[in-house]
Amino acid sequence: MTDHILDQPILDIAAQLRAGRTSAQALVDEAIARHQRLDKALGAYKHWDAEGARAQARAADAALKAGIEAGPLAGIPVSIKDIYGVAGMPTCAGTPKELPARWREEGPVVRAMRRSLAVVTGKTHTVEFAFGAVGRTGNWPSPRNPWDAAAPRACGGSSAGAGVSLAEGSALIAMGTDTGGSIRIPANVTGQVGFKLTHGRWSTAGIVPLSSSFDTPGPLTRSVRDAIVAFAVIDPSAPDARALFARLDATDPAGIRLGMPEQHFWDDLAPGIGEGLKKALDELAAKGMRTKKISFPEAAEARARFLKASFFGVEGVSFVEEHLPDRIKTLDPNVATRFEIARKVSAIDYFTEMRKVAELAAAANARLAEVDALVAPTVPVTVPTLAEVEDTATYVQANGAMTRNTQPINLLGLCAITIPAALDAKGMPVGLQLVARAGAEERLLAVALACEKVLGTARARLGVPPVCRG
Amino acid sequence: MTDHILDQPILDIAAQLRAGRTSAQALVDEAIARHQRLDKALGAYKHWDAEGARAQARAADAALKAGIEAGPLAGIPVSIKDIYGVAGMPTCAGTPKELPARWREEGPVVRAMRRSLAVVTGKTHTVEFAFGAVGRTGNWPSPRNPWDAAAPRACGGSSAGAGVSLAEGSALIAMGTDTGGSIRIPANVTGQVGFKLTHGRWSTAGIVPLSSSFDTPGPLTRSVRDAIVAFAVIDPSAPDARALFARLDATDPAGIRLGMPEQHFWDDLAPGIGEGLKKALDELAAKGMRTKKISFPEAAEARARFLKASFFGVEGVSFVEEHLPDRIKTLDPNVATRFEIARKVSAIDYFTEMRKVAELAAAANARLAEVDALVAPTVPVTVPTLAEVEDTATYVQANGAMTRNTQPINLLGLCAITIPAALDAKGMPVGLQLVARAGAEERLLAVALACEKVLGTARARLGVPPVCRG
Repeated sequence: MTDHILDQPILDIAAQLRAGRTSAQALVDEAIARHQRLDKALGAYKHWDAEGARAQARAADAALKAGIEAGPLAGIPVSIKDIYGVAGMPTCAGTPKELPARWREEGPVVRAMRRSLAVVTGKTHTVEFAFGAVGRTGNWPSPRNPWDAAAPRACGGSSAGAGVSLAEGSALIAMGTDTGGSIRIPANVTGQVGFKLTHGRWSTAGIVPLSSSFDTPGPLTRSVRDAIVAFAVIDPSAPDARALFARLDATDPAGIRLGMPEQHFWDDLAPGIGEGLKKALDELAAKGMRTKKISFPEAAEARARFLKASFFGVEGVSFVEEHLPDRIKTLDPNVATRFEIARKVSAIDYFTEMRKVAELAAAANARLAEVDALVAPTVPVTVPTLAEVEDTATYVQANGAMTRNTQPINLLGLCAITIPAALDAKGMPVGLQLVARAGAEERLLAVALACEKVLGTARARLGVPPVCRG
Repeated sequence: MTDHILDQPILDIAAQLRAGRTSAQALVDEAIARHQRLDKALGAYKHWDAEGARAQARAADAALKAGIEAGPLAGIPVSIKDIYGVAGMPTCAGTPKELPARWREEGPVVRAMRRSLAVVTGKTHTVEFAFGAVGRTGNWPSPRNPWDAAAPRACGGSSAGAGVSLAEGSALIAMGTDTGGSIRIPANVTGQVGFKLTHGRWSTAGIVPLSSSFDTPGPLTRSVRDAIVAFAVIDPSAPDARALFARLDATDPAGIRLGMPEQHFWDDLAPGIGEGLKKALDELAAKGMRTKKISFPEAAEARARFLKASFFGVEGVSFVEEHLPDRIKTLDPNVATRFEIARKVSAIDYFTEMRKVAELAAAANARLAEVDALVAPTVPVTVPTLAEVEDTATYVQANGAMTRNTQPINLLGLCAITIPAALDAKGMPVGLQLVARAGAEERLLAVALACEKVLGTARARLGVPPVCRG
């Protein structure tokens, strides 16, 4: 798969589609071929729709031929996490059977992609109700990490199949959702880019909710360049993708100020993670980016307050009991256990801790005024093998470890992106998390793009995952 | 007190101050004289500051003389509910002793009044932590209703002294707060105008919180005309008071559409209330205002959901435990009882009911697009005598009855104003509540002013309260 047009940046593919040097049909045929070759090993998709993808590709080709300019995603294969409604495709949200028809309805994010004539190849596996960060999808076979050819290893969650669909090469954008890390964690552990926007920036309508106070839709992509394209297509206030890319691409790396948090994020990293990231930061510094230490005590405090009041569980139970009460009895034990904890939280504790976390968010946003982005490991540990998280107690412990550096970002109302930067001591990908103030998505993308130009994209820096090598 | 300049509309007094026909000093002397005459009978104030008022009046006179135009409140006596911070005055918030010094700090609402050189005569009694609608202020002597010369009768709460300070004539604007009716209820039962703005429109900084999801600061006044002045002075986006008044005063009554809710508000009224209000509505109709029936099922449903999850109690306990934990043990039993109920609410129930109430609010706001204002009784029952609410069980029942028609308005995120319209079978004032969509304060004031021009102000329509007759 190394030299195919489908491995180029989306804007380059878009140009070649318009120059008649390829077709949506050819792109989707290649995506299907890749899926057929790798699906058994990877298992990214809950629902795969080759025929539907071919039909969408024909429509995109017809539109291109007719001179209809639907934007740079026309004819580009994409995958959607199976908690989004997509017309014509079942939604299970990780539960053992299909949800009622209303959960097929498309919200604004999916509608923006459909209108742009992106080709939806299928729906990727999710942890049940998006409540879990390891990537073990209890009710369905868990996707397997393409970076470990020796043992079935988890892919991060809750957007468990999203990063894998990118690694497989059957999708160039994988839509996920992130409540406590569910985009950034799977992106990190599969060697992809994962972009979590500010809560509220993109509508969550048409998506099965977990915790409406924190849920955010967003893309996983193979590069920051492609994340910029996804952002431009979906964001209601963003300019044209090429114009945005050109503007962000002009950023002077020497003008970028990175903040190194003095607390929490860099503690107790698994072997190879700190080393790999520090080498990457040295490369960035060599290109003129300045790093300053920044006190950031709000992260640990927000996380401690969260743990006292189980925000996601409280809000998740509330939604499931209202909309899908029949799914309570079939819950994956890894989800059910944490829902039960939420049932014991008092209203006063929930309100108090939410209020204090909002105060911490204001303080954290103010601190970030000094820098363009905070830098931190996205995931501080190596993602476990599936065998290592067979029992619930071990799973819950691994889940807590994996969310340590992402969840505070949600709690503090910030936006963040993870970019692949290294391999750890076990050969698993390591992500560099860049974190910015609420609403500062464009500046964050500019910083991330500048970093990517120094470090190289995942493929250049980390190579092709062992399982995907042809 | 009948013919004194202090009984005129604020804009008229302001004109006479600027014409040199009176002085702030003369106004405050009259306010002090009235207070001395009536305080023993009424007991509106927790803290009265004659000397401070005189000093503020001297400053206002000096500013007027120097040609400094601070706006129409310069030199006008006003009272402030004792849960607002006011520099130089103690804050008790209805608790048995003064709160720490930080609760004296002035927030934006008080600062706007101080900058306008209003003369703060003192702080009026409040129900402890503003959590109660009857007006029995357990830890301090309750204000007495000026409309009942025979027996000590409650004044409504939680802004228990606010309406009484207007009746006494020692304040022309009485600042209160309204979480479930705490401005409109005391205004109703003392024969005043009470204005509850949309939640979030005015900052609650510098005010002891009860329930931050619903707390709203606002004025009680003797007329809608004066409420417009208070709104113009305090609201950051409002135009100059005279310009606003002139614009609202030009409203054609025949263009006003009133909505008569088909459910909840007009059920089970105490004798004289429905009769008095229907007569008032007939008078409005005779001037061309049109009334249409409007289905409004959200009110009863919001109230039922509220009762399941005790929002105010949950949020109130959270604040008191954080900021004033030493006041838990001295709580008035009428407050403590309801705080205890809140302790039993689960986080899931709180979140679910808050979420459903937000959905109901969206629906209710949409319904109100059809009319300028909903019309309803402000308080559906006669306010009890203080003797009738001696024990907590009776108090809690009376409290529920008094909030029945106001609290749903808070829950549904609307704005509302009560204007005096009649006396009930016991000779107690009856208020007509006008309710409008979120953010529609100016249109609501225009409708209320048009109604006041038909019905007359409180003094013209209801006369002087018996206790205040000289």
